[in-house]
Amino acid sequence: MMILIKNGTILTQDKNRRVIKDGAVLFEGETIKAIGQTKKVESLIKGKKLEKIIEAKGKVVMPGLVNAHTHLAMTLLRGLADDLPLEEWWFKKIFSAESKFTRRHVFLGSLLGGLEMIKSGTTCFVDFYYFEDEVASAVKELGLRANLGVGILDLETFAFKNSPESFVQFFELAERFRNDNLIRISLAPHMFQTTSRETYKKAKKAAGRFNCIMQTHLAETKAEVDFCRKKYGKTPAQILDKEKILDGKTLLAHGCHLDEKDIKILGKNKVSVAHCPVSNMKLASGVMPLARLEKAGVCLALGTDGSCSNNSLDMFGEMKFAALLQKSFFGDPALADSQRVLDMATINGARALGLEKEIGSIEPGKKADIIILDFDQPHLTPVSNIASHLVYCANGADVLTSIVNGRVVMENRKVKVIDEKKVLVQIKEILKLNS
Amino acid sequence: MMILIKNGTILTQDKNRRVIKDGAVLFEGETIKAIGQTKKVESLIKGKKLEKIIEAKGKVVMPGLVNAHTHLAMTLLRGLADDLPLEEWWFKKIFSAESKFTRRHVFLGSLLGGLEMIKSGTTCFVDFYYFEDEVASAVKELGLRANLGVGILDLETFAFKNSPESFVQFFELAERFRNDNLIRISLAPHMFQTTSRETYKKAKKAAGRFNCIMQTHLAETKAEVDFCRKKYGKTPAQILDKEKILDGKTLLAHGCHLDEKDIKILGKNKVSVAHCPVSNMKLASGVMPLARLEKAGVCLALGTDGSCSNNSLDMFGEMKFAALLQKSFFGDPALADSQRVLDMATINGARALGLEKEIGSIEPGKKADIIILDFDQPHLTPVSNIASHLVYCANGADVLTSIVNGRVVMENRKVKVIDEKKVLVQIKEILKLNS
Repeated sequence: MMILIKNGTILTQDKNRRVIKDGAVLFEGETIKAIGQTKKVESLIKGKKLEKIIEAKGKVVMPGLVNAHTHLAMTLLRGLADDLPLEEWWFKKIFSAESKFTRRHVFLGSLLGGLEMIKSGTTCFVDFYYFEDEVASAVKELGLRANLGVGILDLETFAFKNSPESFVQFFELAERFRNDNLIRISLAPHMFQTTSRETYKKAKKAAGRFNCIMQTHLAETKAEVDFCRKKYGKTPAQILDKEKILDGKTLLAHGCHLDEKDIKILGKNKVSVAHCPVSNMKLASGVMPLARLEKAGVCLALGTDGSCSNNSLDMFGEMKFAALLQKSFFGDPALADSQRVLDMATINGARALGLEKEIGSIEPGKKADIIILDFDQPHLTPVSNIASHLVYCANGADVLTSIVNGRVVMENRKVKVIDEKKVLVQIKEILKLNS
Repeated sequence: MMILIKNGTILTQDKNRRVIKDGAVLFEGETIKAIGQTKKVESLIKGKKLEKIIEAKGKVVMPGLVNAHTHLAMTLLRGLADDLPLEEWWFKKIFSAESKFTRRHVFLGSLLGGLEMIKSGTTCFVDFYYFEDEVASAVKELGLRANLGVGILDLETFAFKNSPESFVQFFELAERFRNDNLIRISLAPHMFQTTSRETYKKAKKAAGRFNCIMQTHLAETKAEVDFCRKKYGKTPAQILDKEKILDGKTLLAHGCHLDEKDIKILGKNKVSVAHCPVSNMKLASGVMPLARLEKAGVCLALGTDGSCSNNSLDMFGEMKFAALLQKSFFGDPALADSQRVLDMATINGARALGLEKEIGSIEPGKKADIIILDFDQPHLTPVSNIASHLVYCANGADVLTSIVNGRVVMENRKVKVIDEKKVLVQIKEILKLNS
């Protein structure tokens, strides 16, 4: 059955970044069938029966946002600790709370974070955590699209005793979701301070066997780079390059501390970097050199990081931070313009996941991952430039309707896939039990 | 008649920053009569008739936010130009569009901006513009509290041919609103690049005659400081100090480029500074040294600046930027903690306006400037620390109800003082007429 969205302003994010006024999007099942002027699209379906018509007058219809780096289950620790020196924040507060997590915590934390994402316009995300089978269960309940990264460390975590156990989980999940329509699996070695070079090499090989992405945290902090220089005589990027681990199927999070040689390496290998400006600012980690990475040929995506270091999963807020941090830090108001940042949160995110032919823009043949924003509001009036308003004025609460793979998961701010209030009660229960 | 807000979490922002769970606030007319546990407050009014009961279970009740620096009418130019070098942005785009403004533009732009403020939890603001009588008309329609600054430059503007004309307007307005319950008037010399030292001296004298605040932009850009050093051999702060213009009735916007001597001067004179992090980042102006100013004894408030350089008036977004910019720029995640930033947006803003005995906290005897936020939402779950959630997770759309001076101006997100949709239509009309 077909669904028609009509009379809206369609921000396609196609190759020409076309914006269609009085526009319509028609999709059938999971696939977009037609876009264009409402009259023209309506003429294509004359006499045919529609499942639903979504009126979008005064609204902006755009691709769902892609959150390219998060740790979803950590939403359960939102606001637990802030404004502390890094070591105190991590070791005394976050790590200690996280170590009490059970499978149920991971499931419910993911459900909570996923709800927040639906309500703020994210339709696809990249996770990086443990018990990703539990995250997958939450994702399935919510109907989101995701790439779930099985975290690997050479340390004991609450989920795994050691890295071989994590590899086993990866193999199981990669097999289970091999042909899934919404979930893909990736392998996610943690970082060089916790994960050996040997484990990285094994991870790349294992990811390759399943044609999966390999994710890792890279050059997030100066301490990490110093550690690598001391231990290996090289920067993190140089180590990975030497081991031939970097390629178009590599997604690196952060990239704050990169020298010119590193940037050249990342560009040459066509890697993707998930920029996480809020997390980097909140933890005072550093600033990713956006313009230089882009110039070098790196695909730049955008991520919120986990709720412990943000503390929000709202990608609209993240876009504003991305645009403003570059201007402020590098002293140039022309840097990181709104269209560029919007690209990071949509089509570039898709590209980072190897999904650029499926999502990231509204085009016939692509999957219907679409969000609809109410622009008929004071804080979005007047409209000169839609990209500017999306980056500098909008927030997640402006999203009325979210569609993932052709399924309406939220309509007029009512989540349709799950009982929202029930989840909030379950969260309160599990945290009480544990306190 | 009395209004009771009950069963909420009351974030008082009183001297002890008390948070009352299962709390209530009772106000009669414009004045708060009692706060405390709901049971206790209810026992005080047994048998008495109430005008209204506002149920606040699952909600946070807090003081309305104070936006300490904006140019409200410029909301009409929201998104007109972004991501440009400063000179191109200002001279080619903004200044040229603004020069076509009429009184009607200023009125409608203020109405639009005021609506946005009501809908995002700001109950009091400081304006700085021309035709402040028109801004006052808009403020009266909306029922907001405001300090309206009559802008003064030694240049011709769309409103005034010269600075004497602006002084005349100031005298008229200061007289007209001398005993107003919601509006105060201030005098606002623009900045040293457009306004002479003589005009500053006259302005301070005139403001003093009416016991008014004097506002100005100070050390916003390096260019401004360089200009002053070249022309006067001193920094802007040093010039004002030498002329004995600085005191507790001085509100300075920005303060990005201050040396140690400047900071000492500002502290010694007990001035207030309105920090505008988003504007400073968007225009790459610089970064205000928050911790050093605070240590020196300066009262730090928070402002959004105008919609051209933000492009939002949402003070919740502004708080997050304030907290994160300091951590990132100065490399210390413990800087600008959430309680400190919340203080800037409430009680410090009140103090900057000389209103600390009237607003900025919820205490018996103070005016009822109160907002109520819906905390029963995924992005605000779970709650460990309310201040943290307000700064790092909330946004203006979480505000359900806004009360200014005892009057409910918005309830359950419905603006009660004006026809919101009609204003949006009027905005579209005036911009079409002009295009």
